[in-house]
Amino acid sequence: MTSTREQVAARYGVRDESDPTVEAVAAVAADAGEVLDVVLGHRTVRDYLPEALSDEVVTTLVAAAQSAASSSNMQLWSVVVVTDSERKARLGALAGDQEHVAAAPLLLVFVADVARARSVAGDLPATDLLDTTVVAVVDIGIAAQNAVLVAESLGLGTCFIGAIRNDPAGVAAELGLPPGTVAVVGVTVGRPDPARRSFVKPRLPQQAVVHHETYDLDAQAEAVATYESRVAGFYAAAGMPGGWSDRLTDRLGTPEALNGRQHLREALAARGLPSA
Amino acid sequence: MTSTREQVAARYGVRDESDPTVEAVAAVAADAGEVLDVVLGHRTVRDYLPEALSDEVVTTLVAAAQSAASSSNMQLWSVVVVTDSERKARLGALAGDQEHVAAAPLLLVFVADVARARSVAGDLPATDLLDTTVVAVVDIGIAAQNAVLVAESLGLGTCFIGAIRNDPAGVAAELGLPPGTVAVVGVTVGRPDPARRSFVKPRLPQQAVVHHETYDLDAQAEAVATYESRVAGFYAAAGMPGGWSDRLTDRLGTPEALNGRQHLREALAARGLPSA
Repeated sequence: MTSTREQVAARYGVRDESDPTVEAVAAVAADAGEVLDVVLGHRTVRDYLPEALSDEVVTTLVAAAQSAASSSNMQLWSVVVVTDSERKARLGALAGDQEHVAAAPLLLVFVADVARARSVAGDLPATDLLDTTVVAVVDIGIAAQNAVLVAESLGLGTCFIGAIRNDPAGVAAELGLPPGTVAVVGVTVGRPDPARRSFVKPRLPQQAVVHHETYDLDAQAEAVATYESRVAGFYAAAGMPGGWSDRLTDRLGTPEALNGRQHLREALAARGLPSA
Repeated sequence: MTSTREQVAARYGVRDESDPTVEAVAAVAADAGEVLDVVLGHRTVRDYLPEALSDEVVTTLVAAAQSAASSSNMQLWSVVVVTDSERKARLGALAGDQEHVAAAPLLLVFVADVARARSVAGDLPATDLLDTTVVAVVDIGIAAQNAVLVAESLGLGTCFIGAIRNDPAGVAAELGLPPGTVAVVGVTVGRPDPARRSFVKPRLPQQAVVHHETYDLDAQAEAVATYESRVAGFYAAAGMPGGWSDRLTDRLGTPEALNGRQHLREALAARGLPSA
């Protein structure tokens, strides 16, 4: 088992385990138990054994997701459980040609859903407004992470599929989604292939992300520069040239780099989802 | 300690612990350990003891949040740690006059942040597009839930504050947020006051939320009707008249019911955040 110090050092890409963030988390770890261990140990897993998950595990992951907070208890999301190989392959193709989606035993597609609320309570004018989509998206993030952590506690691996938003109409056709619903994020789940290693990707130092009482953009510069040097080694080892700022430019430098997601606003409107 | 069966029965508001969802989760619980226990035991806590949290705990909650997945490692969020009493009171007033925000020892304000990316990589045209805000919001939900679960594993209680979006300009002024940042959600954290009980709020039956391979709106009707009868008792016991559909109508029946959030799209544009 990896120690908390080793986990936090890997998370921030620091070699020196006397780093203050490492020390602080290690001091708390004894009281936090297994939850902190699973949280700190998170890594993305894209290589799975071809082993189906039981119905009980799927039910448990959904119960975990539903146990998360829900804004005003509106429960503005649904989840489509996809295990059919051909459907997973088609969805992976729609989501940026990610072949590992087809190979995963399970794909959970989390869907922002005002269709159920409308069917229950009739005309709801506020479901036309952007904040309602934001409510659904926040609640999906919260819910999906519960499912992810429970999966990881069961020894399973996961991968978020944001590219499920590349083609909302295509995904809706594949999943039979009615008006008032749109796929927000997918999560693949499966038992990690032990022959393929996965890695903890270093994150920005806390000094770049945390602000006390008020936000300070200038104070981040040094921490971001430190991060560039820490993450360069990670990217180089993974065979990915360039540093963090290069990757931000690749990902956000042009509308076309969004691979379809640059049209999300129109796509939401077409799906009867709030965007006004 | 509450058994898994009792936890799941409370989560779905069922009295009969031979319910199939209860049985399925109980069958998995032995392998899942403490993570599932904390996840299933979640409840919102608004009443805290006046006991400050240590710096080490705050650092640990942030490390937990940063350990969550991040879309393309873009890390498009920041967090403002607020412990100053007067600032918490002012933010609580901005967020729908929630007095419990001032009484919480800690308020974490999660901020969608393209300012850092722009400061690192210069002009990034895709940061003007709505999908980039959705990326930030999904990642904030995922990150915040990690912090919430670790807090709960430490015996702390939490409450999500979505009303932090009621007045984005007012919150930005209070927190000194630069262009390219907007508060998405707050989380209060503190030690629960043992004199004030908190309750698990029952959720929709899985039959209303889970779809297999394709979505089926009609199949939800019976499960939703079942839910109305289950949740009515919960709301009545809490002194809140009406059922679930009534509450949906209260919350979404008019634009004005959003208490300012009906203007989110304009507010995002004014903050230099993507909404196109």
